[in-house]
Amino acid sequence: MRVRNKPWAKGYIEDHADKMVTAPEPLKGNWQSRFPSEQPLFVEIGTGKGQFIVEMARQHPDQNFIGIEIQMSVIAVALKKVVASGLTNIQMVHTDGEAVNTFFDAGEVAGLYLNFSDPWPKSRHAKRRLTSPVFLAHYADVLQSEGQIQFKTDNRGLFEYSLESLNNFGLVFDGVWLDLHAATDGVEDIETEYEQKFSAKGPIYQVIAHFPKAAE
Amino acid sequence: MRVRNKPWAKGYIEDHADKMVTAPEPLKGNWQSRFPSEQPLFVEIGTGKGQFIVEMARQHPDQNFIGIEIQMSVIAVALKKVVASGLTNIQMVHTDGEAVNTFFDAGEVAGLYLNFSDPWPKSRHAKRRLTSPVFLAHYADVLQSEGQIQFKTDNRGLFEYSLESLNNFGLVFDGVWLDLHAATDGVEDIETEYEQKFSAKGPIYQVIAHFPKAAE
Repeated sequence: MRVRNKPWAKGYIEDHADKMVTAPEPLKGNWQSRFPSEQPLFVEIGTGKGQFIVEMARQHPDQNFIGIEIQMSVIAVALKKVVASGLTNIQMVHTDGEAVNTFFDAGEVAGLYLNFSDPWPKSRHAKRRLTSPVFLAHYADVLQSEGQIQFKTDNRGLFEYSLESLNNFGLVFDGVWLDLHAATDGVEDIETEYEQKFSAKGPIYQVIAHFPKAAE
Repeated sequence: MRVRNKPWAKGYIEDHADKMVTAPEPLKGNWQSRFPSEQPLFVEIGTGKGQFIVEMARQHPDQNFIGIEIQMSVIAVALKKVVASGLTNIQMVHTDGEAVNTFFDAGEVAGLYLNFSDPWPKSRHAKRRLTSPVFLAHYADVLQSEGQIQFKTDNRGLFEYSLESLNNFGLVFDGVWLDLHAATDGVEDIETEYEQKFSAKGPIYQVIAHFPKAAE
């Protein structure tokens, strides 16, 4: 997501250090200290303007949530939503979500959300896609046993790639949706800002999957 | 596929016993005897009116092909195409394709095609779908090592189910296409009669996958 620079962002983030982490590595293994209650921790990588993760936190008070976003001008908008919500079970993290295993401990994460990630359409950039094997290995490091990855996108090429990549990595599919907004199985769909804006152009794809147990 | 009864079908099939097998079990392990050359054997389950498999046989003279179809009035139409083609690397089999392991031997089949299979949309009929675990177990019995299943459909629900079912069974995806007719990767697509007639209504989905090696 490309956005205009927001001059207020830096100061706003500094003023809300209770809701926003800018140096995540020291918290490895100790993220629950950022929340009033110790609860299963769900993480969105590339949280954008935060609508999805804030709404998740609102609907699931028995879970803790973290939204990770690299762009300061974007996460500042998400942070505003967090502050306005008054919710205490959500934290923002301003960092690169690529190396989650450097700041989450083994089994520390209950579930991961990837929503409308950058498609990196050129083959030579495939390694940068958040569903490529190198990232899947990181997710495997931090997810608890049976912890799920939930991935949605409107990009057909990225979804084709991701189904192959997750399958080839050995992940077990729990569900596949090829037109999420037309689904009749009662699946929960909390929309992102992007999804609301662009979904009329084509179907939203989603897959939910988990890593097999190590002993299998 | 529902079709009108064709009074000529039975006699036509009897007249072309060199191209058509009606009692497949005795040929188990010996299907190459039906062809002039011993070549890798590819099988379409539910061959319908035969356009796909006849065109495959035409384009791949170094392979042998079998089309299986349960409905006599349908396979008689396919048989006409086989006879008209003059091809010797294709045979029709009039039987129920559900129990392929009763008439193919272990490793006898190089690859399987499932095209626009009956979607059996009701959950209680899921076991009848040709990508359900009971059928996948049969395919695993007859396919040679690394032999592929190629499955295409225009039915979204069936494709969602099939991706999950193949993945959960442990098959390894070699390719996934969510709009085969829009693909730009040069993938071969030989259309079935049904595909030509109905594809304008929505995307054609395809997955190609293989069973992992037993030793893996």
